[in-house]
Amino acid sequence: MHKNKHHLDLEGITKKGIPVIETDAAKLDSLSGSENHQGIVAMAAEKEYVSVDDILAIAAERGEKPLVVIADCIEDPYNLGALIRCAECAGAHGIIVPKRHAVGLTPAVTKASAGAIEHMAIAKVSNIATTIEELKEKGLWIFASEAGGSAYYETDFDTPAAIVFGSEGNGVGRLIKERSDFIVSIPMYGKVNSLNVSTAASVILCHAARMQREKK
Amino acid sequence: MHKNKHHLDLEGITKKGIPVIETDAAKLDSLSGSENHQGIVAMAAEKEYVSVDDILAIAAERGEKPLVVIADCIEDPYNLGALIRCAECAGAHGIIVPKRHAVGLTPAVTKASAGAIEHMAIAKVSNIATTIEELKEKGLWIFASEAGGSAYYETDFDTPAAIVFGSEGNGVGRLIKERSDFIVSIPMYGKVNSLNVSTAASVILCHAARMQREKK
Repeated sequence: MHKNKHHLDLEGITKKGIPVIETDAAKLDSLSGSENHQGIVAMAAEKEYVSVDDILAIAAERGEKPLVVIADCIEDPYNLGALIRCAECAGAHGIIVPKRHAVGLTPAVTKASAGAIEHMAIAKVSNIATTIEELKEKGLWIFASEAGGSAYYETDFDTPAAIVFGSEGNGVGRLIKERSDFIVSIPMYGKVNSLNVSTAASVILCHAARMQREKK
Repeated sequence: MHKNKHHLDLEGITKKGIPVIETDAAKLDSLSGSENHQGIVAMAAEKEYVSVDDILAIAAERGEKPLVVIADCIEDPYNLGALIRCAECAGAHGIIVPKRHAVGLTPAVTKASAGAIEHMAIAKVSNIATTIEELKEKGLWIFASEAGGSAYYETDFDTPAAIVFGSEGNGVGRLIKERSDFIVSIPMYGKVNSLNVSTAASVILCHAARMQREKK
């Protein structure tokens, strides 16, 4: 805090257990990322994003083939949270989400993830299609979960893999499907022809995780 | 309707597209299941329950091995609806739910099922443990989805099968586990040690459906 020009109830804030630190204007500029902070910056705990390279580093540290989930424009917080939970249970090393056309890491997402979000590395990228090209250069194969592809259980996931799941309404975007190496599907035997994104993801991720880990 | 002793706005009701039929007291007694109907009975569309034998008959008609889902005390409407959707997508022939300690087929369940409830035969039974004994006598094997069992992908589901899924908090009940032929689990590779009931069900049901249908 630079100067108490807002006549804040500093004593009240301190009593609530919130530490108050006085600092200079340059530090506040740096903390807020602009000069437009009116002399005060509050720091709140939030899930910190990592980079795509951080996710690959986690796989390398564990000595495992990368298993990365790409959430393509998932707008429903329940679905994103449930997807994070499935990915964490399947031992995925991280999730990549787009900056735009997607829900952020809101409290509803955290709740739906049942705590899994705390253990999952999440990277936010400007352009999923560009990120896919980078992952391919780094040796990952790209699998898009969509109707009309090969059955998931006939697909060889025993490789460094990134698996793309799309929104329930629109599926995986066209540009992303075109850049994918494989389209994988879950055969449907009923009259309703699609699973919810998290239930589809659990089927494919559990299978991929098993194939990556199975002793040959 | 027997007689208009309630001075109902019959014209208004008819204008709303609701057909009104006058009938005698005996018919009203029969429709309402009692004499306590005050001269009027309204009929609303609702999901009708079937019997366990009806479910087995559906499998027989299709020439398929029975694949039955048992929902053991699932109290959350979203979870039950999502489970119905997964079961329908996997081509299960029906779902068995208990009369007590479970959510009914409420509008929230219907919504979460994404329409799948319309295509799924659902039986309500007084006692799941007794029903399991009956299913076993009819040649079905009982699989309980629980931690600590065999990996689902090492389990032979190519048989008439009923698969039990429990509530998220409590899992499958002890009496039901004791009566099951197999405990099947999904290996967890993360720090959060359980999937949501519908995501777990989708993994196991998709695998079981595939095994039942695969050409040997």
